[in-house]
Amino acid sequence: MGRVTDRRRVERINEGGRSFRPDTLIVEEPLEIQINGEPLTVTMRTPGDDVDLALGWLYAEGIISSYEDVITAKHCTDSDLNVLDVRLAPHVPVPDRAGRGFTVSSACGACGTSSLEALREVTAKAVRWRIGDDDVEVGVDLLAALPDRLRASQRAFARTGGVHAAGLFDASGTEVAVREDVGRHNAVDKIVGGRLRDGGVPLTGHVLMASGRVGYEIVQKAAMAGIPVLAAVSAPSTLAVDLAADLGMTLVGFVRGSSMNVYSGSARVSSS
Amino acid sequence: MGRVTDRRRVERINEGGRSFRPDTLIVEEPLEIQINGEPLTVTMRTPGDDVDLALGWLYAEGIISSYEDVITAKHCTDSDLNVLDVRLAPHVPVPDRAGRGFTVSSACGACGTSSLEALREVTAKAVRWRIGDDDVEVGVDLLAALPDRLRASQRAFARTGGVHAAGLFDASGTEVAVREDVGRHNAVDKIVGGRLRDGGVPLTGHVLMASGRVGYEIVQKAAMAGIPVLAAVSAPSTLAVDLAADLGMTLVGFVRGSSMNVYSGSARVSSS
Repeated sequence: MGRVTDRRRVERINEGGRSFRPDTLIVEEPLEIQINGEPLTVTMRTPGDDVDLALGWLYAEGIISSYEDVITAKHCTDSDLNVLDVRLAPHVPVPDRAGRGFTVSSACGACGTSSLEALREVTAKAVRWRIGDDDVEVGVDLLAALPDRLRASQRAFARTGGVHAAGLFDASGTEVAVREDVGRHNAVDKIVGGRLRDGGVPLTGHVLMASGRVGYEIVQKAAMAGIPVLAAVSAPSTLAVDLAADLGMTLVGFVRGSSMNVYSGSARVSSS
Repeated sequence: MGRVTDRRRVERINEGGRSFRPDTLIVEEPLEIQINGEPLTVTMRTPGDDVDLALGWLYAEGIISSYEDVITAKHCTDSDLNVLDVRLAPHVPVPDRAGRGFTVSSACGACGTSSLEALREVTAKAVRWRIGDDDVEVGVDLLAALPDRLRASQRAFARTGGVHAAGLFDASGTEVAVREDVGRHNAVDKIVGGRLRDGGVPLTGHVLMASGRVGYEIVQKAAMAGIPVLAAVSAPSTLAVDLAADLGMTLVGFVRGSSMNVYSGSARVSSS
């Protein structure tokens, strides 16, 4: 496995003057995901849990629908940790790279759709679980505690001060998995991919806590995995809120201290 | 032009109880970029400066190398603001969508390259300006002032509390352009695209200030535009630092109060 953090020489400037010292940074490296030996996509990611990242990404894109769709998933050779090959079961259609037109920085399966309505339609059709039917309840106190629990498990953030994270918790607030990555969407893919391997998907009754802001792609990935409650430290976008509302997902933002904003599905958030 | 912010009904929870109220959110919408009428990519962006976004993105990808390469760039019809068509001059090769393999969430032109060495080679070759030759100097005090100057120009952030920004300043600290977007890379593309239209590229002697963290893609986009100094409020990744060092770019991170970390090119940072 590649290193999650690494050191570089940095000149520190403050009121005391200027001095060189080592600084710990989060590692960012490209990972090429291949399907049956053919390149499909390249993503920038922090090394570690690469198989989970690939599985989670393929799952969010609708290319695989269960762990049974995968025969093997492994780095191509010992000498190149930046290429991961996934062998699909014979019954799984191989995605057409050109036809799908994987797009820059959307990570959303929205490729080729140019209108909001089309986008929502695509996602609603792709989501396998009726999140709206999940009657899990989470307390305000539990939600308020999640940012600190997430931070407490962020080992790379503690060393670098600059990395995204996502944490999966059950409805009692018990941590199921926490993943860190330079890309916020990668952290979610790694969580979902890991649970897919363990037979834990759909993630009914679970809460996903995100370290930063929430855009469309995070809601889409959570929805594909059947997660009914998504909470974040910072702001959601309009599209994130609209998609969550469409799908019946609970979306909570600006979880800070004992206050928070519930953007959709507030029936699941209990005050007691 | 589409709206930059929009309102949604939100349930606000704090120690005083629960109440519904309108909340202002940053708008996120897909934009399909077409070349000569053929779809090339879809990006999630905040509406506004769409032409600049497309031009800046095409420039960072190496598809166009000057504004003269573009005949027209406009939204397809009045009824669909989410499709923008760029007509290229006859001498400009039309990018092959399948061959380029635009990838999810990298936004970096790194597609198909799976090793770090190959990645650096690609970028070093693509960058048109020898940034290392730019002998501009910027003072520590000026760099320390940029986060506040950037924030002061972030109108959408003031309303939403959740949007990225990038600001271009000259070496005296005068603001040239500030752009906000749900995607940090989009904000940079919008700035570069606007300057490209105005004949201002290469951006010799300029400083780019980013609101968040700095990954590979931001360094790459700044480098393509010839920007010698890149500063950010938060942390860079290893790849961002390594690429900046390779190209002779000055990269400053964690600009907070009067302190900062200079990761590369510290000769351009003057203490007086």
